[in-house]
Amino acid sequence: MALTPARTMPGVLELLPLDQIAFQRMLDVIRRNYERFGFVPVETPVIEFSDVLLTKTGGETERQVYFVQSTGSLEQGEKPDLALRFDLTVPLARYVAEHEHDLSFPFRRYQMQRVYRGERAQRGRFREFYQCDIDVIGKDSLSVRYDAELPAVIYSVFRELNIGAFTIQLNNRKLMRGFFESLGITDGEQQTLVLREVDKIDKIGVDGVTEKLRLQLALDSRFEHGSQLTEDTIRKILDFVQVRSTSLQDAFDKLDALGPGPESMEQGRAELKEVLGLIRDFGVPETHYVLNLSIARGLDYYTGTVYETTLNDHPQIGSICSGGRYENLASQYTKSKLPGVGISIGLTRLYWQLRDAGLVATGQSTVDVLVTQMDAAQMPAYLALANELRSAGIATEVVLEGGKLGKQFKYADRAGIRFVIVLGEDEIAKGVVTVKDLRREDQFEVSRAELIKALRVELAQAEVGR
Amino acid sequence: MALTPARTMPGVLELLPLDQIAFQRMLDVIRRNYERFGFVPVETPVIEFSDVLLTKTGGETERQVYFVQSTGSLEQGEKPDLALRFDLTVPLARYVAEHEHDLSFPFRRYQMQRVYRGERAQRGRFREFYQCDIDVIGKDSLSVRYDAELPAVIYSVFRELNIGAFTIQLNNRKLMRGFFESLGITDGEQQTLVLREVDKIDKIGVDGVTEKLRLQLALDSRFEHGSQLTEDTIRKILDFVQVRSTSLQDAFDKLDALGPGPESMEQGRAELKEVLGLIRDFGVPETHYVLNLSIARGLDYYTGTVYETTLNDHPQIGSICSGGRYENLASQYTKSKLPGVGISIGLTRLYWQLRDAGLVATGQSTVDVLVTQMDAAQMPAYLALANELRSAGIATEVVLEGGKLGKQFKYADRAGIRFVIVLGEDEIAKGVVTVKDLRREDQFEVSRAELIKALRVELAQAEVGR
Repeated sequence: MALTPARTMPGVLELLPLDQIAFQRMLDVIRRNYERFGFVPVETPVIEFSDVLLTKTGGETERQVYFVQSTGSLEQGEKPDLALRFDLTVPLARYVAEHEHDLSFPFRRYQMQRVYRGERAQRGRFREFYQCDIDVIGKDSLSVRYDAELPAVIYSVFRELNIGAFTIQLNNRKLMRGFFESLGITDGEQQTLVLREVDKIDKIGVDGVTEKLRLQLALDSRFEHGSQLTEDTIRKILDFVQVRSTSLQDAFDKLDALGPGPESMEQGRAELKEVLGLIRDFGVPETHYVLNLSIARGLDYYTGTVYETTLNDHPQIGSICSGGRYENLASQYTKSKLPGVGISIGLTRLYWQLRDAGLVATGQSTVDVLVTQMDAAQMPAYLALANELRSAGIATEVVLEGGKLGKQFKYADRAGIRFVIVLGEDEIAKGVVTVKDLRREDQFEVSRAELIKALRVELAQAEVGR
Repeated sequence: MALTPARTMPGVLELLPLDQIAFQRMLDVIRRNYERFGFVPVETPVIEFSDVLLTKTGGETERQVYFVQSTGSLEQGEKPDLALRFDLTVPLARYVAEHEHDLSFPFRRYQMQRVYRGERAQRGRFREFYQCDIDVIGKDSLSVRYDAELPAVIYSVFRELNIGAFTIQLNNRKLMRGFFESLGITDGEQQTLVLREVDKIDKIGVDGVTEKLRLQLALDSRFEHGSQLTEDTIRKILDFVQVRSTSLQDAFDKLDALGPGPESMEQGRAELKEVLGLIRDFGVPETHYVLNLSIARGLDYYTGTVYETTLNDHPQIGSICSGGRYENLASQYTKSKLPGVGISIGLTRLYWQLRDAGLVATGQSTVDVLVTQMDAAQMPAYLALANELRSAGIATEVVLEGGKLGKQFKYADRAGIRFVIVLGEDEIAKGVVTVKDLRREDQFEVSRAELIKALRVELAQAEVGR
């Protein structure tokens, strides 16, 4: 039989075991923190009805949806009526609308699953990737206080992930909208056009954005006649979007310094002040969050607070956790008004970037101990020892195949297993075991009675240093 | 805008949060035990190239494969070259063949992901379901001792899942094949036909199988002329497949009592004896595993030891964990010989059946504590308290919206949150908190300093009793 080449499709991140362990640890940290803040888990099917997924026009092409057909449906030449989800927000909307009467509001869910997009194959673009989302959904209304809770969760997650200094950046869409109105840019589409350019400020700089806005002024018919985008207006826009705070008081001062504006600007300012103040009460240090008036986040979806999070020493990675407040989650499925606020961590891309930048440690297995085999006749002793260790919660593998001891050590080393136990005739007679610590390149003898305690101490220390 | 009905496709199990928590706990128990035995995690993409998935003929229709196409490919009228995996074994074979040179052997992996089959919509049939698999893969060879390790893992998993008494049933395909040869049924296809009938013994009983075998004798051309299936042969087959052991010694005795046979029967008997004996050394009580010579497990794939696991008090549920030994994992992708042994738990179906039978407890949230809101002005105090609890690993939600206290209690009750903390002016002045235990319908006052200790004790007790 001719062999089929074993391969995966482009755009997926398949990991070797030690990398998968590092990835799994990140998932665990995120989940633990989401749960600690009182979010409950939801999982939805990967496959949804296409008409449910694609209620918004233009979504299909834009999102590069993957359509799904069973063998039977394909054979009958039917059009696919199933598709893979492209994010977790549409399934959340569907879930809340479908189960509305069985849920308690505010509904606080976390969801950590993979999503699918038929992206062009390209380095760093993924067709399958994890999203780790939390959202708080209110029925009819939802206090702006929840907008302050999510940065506390972000802080808690990234502190424990231990991937370097980070900053949560906040803005408010009402404030932005109000500000544009104050400049005479009142039309939503106009605002969108300007926001799209402004969003690039961290990439192309102030001069780049100024240039783009001037081009806008010259080229776009919506601006030609009204001439709102005068040089003075452009300067004002650029002054606005360059606002960054250095402390909470500084954020308050800079917000006040914007001067009075139309109602939505005042609303946005009041919300931002409340949220920024509460974030401190949630225990987030002032060093870890700032006002950043250039953050716009998507152009239609968000309506109030918006967040981005960046690594201070790796700005090129971009936002590692984003989100914001939205007016109504599920208007395509239900007449109920369901305002919410949420954030999302795109973990596959983040992990890939961190690994690329050498910021994730790998090399350590989930297996703590390898019990070697000196003599097959002693198998019951090896198995009894392994049983003891496992009962104490220490992940243990026993060499069942045998072979030279050197080869067994090489296996442990390659598999990233830290402790190797040798239990020979001598050791059994003396009631001790020899433990080789492959990480420290060290070894020690310990009595059987003390073994578990000794290993636990070492493993707990490793956990702290991780 | 007309509303789109929010709904999922038939054949998926979407859970409400408290059920999802119960499901997640089962996943966690399985993972913890897999890791404790030294298995390392692997995840593979849900989408694979169709030609990689479907190397074996007949697979496509039989497995009811879901094919996948991106928007672009669909528009161009192309045939789909992508598909969703229908199990975790084919992806494992592809993974091992693809990464062979980066893996350490024996390769011990666990994989807990969803798989997809376009099943006919029917109660209890799932189109999307979790499989939780472990396999040990050897390079060139793999000691039969590993066949004894997997029952130890099964024992450990199901003991901790705590879903009632269970029995791991073992057989060996070589023993069966040798036994059939000794009856003159030497042709593989003939054996397959007989095995297919014998496999039904637990469903249709001895008389049912006898009847089926008689029909076989009368109808099937492969038996008509050779006439191997005499009444005497049928009786011998039925005596054989009814063999069950009551203890390890009894298993040895019953294996010996089968009498001498051809080489493969002797091989199978020797393997079974070694495996059964080692399982005891692995610490599995004799009450939890038996010899059952009717177990056949699939008809082509397995070549040696085969397992099924049943709940003693719920035989109608059928096997809850099955697997066995195979000769060569990935012959379709590589010339390397990769023998292995593995088991699989189909968790979605199992969970669904257990819930149906009232065997999984739900109703308790991952959220341990709800901090109520008496007075919005005290928000900083509530948040500081929540912070303390979270730092101690206690999952805590704070009511940020406010509203009547009674409504807040009702929310906690409905959401399955056990402890509700009341922190009023009095309590703050006295340095205490009032804790309501909604499960015990009890309440107590405790000093702030003692709160964490008190809650930890209660939560640890609940964990034990779970």
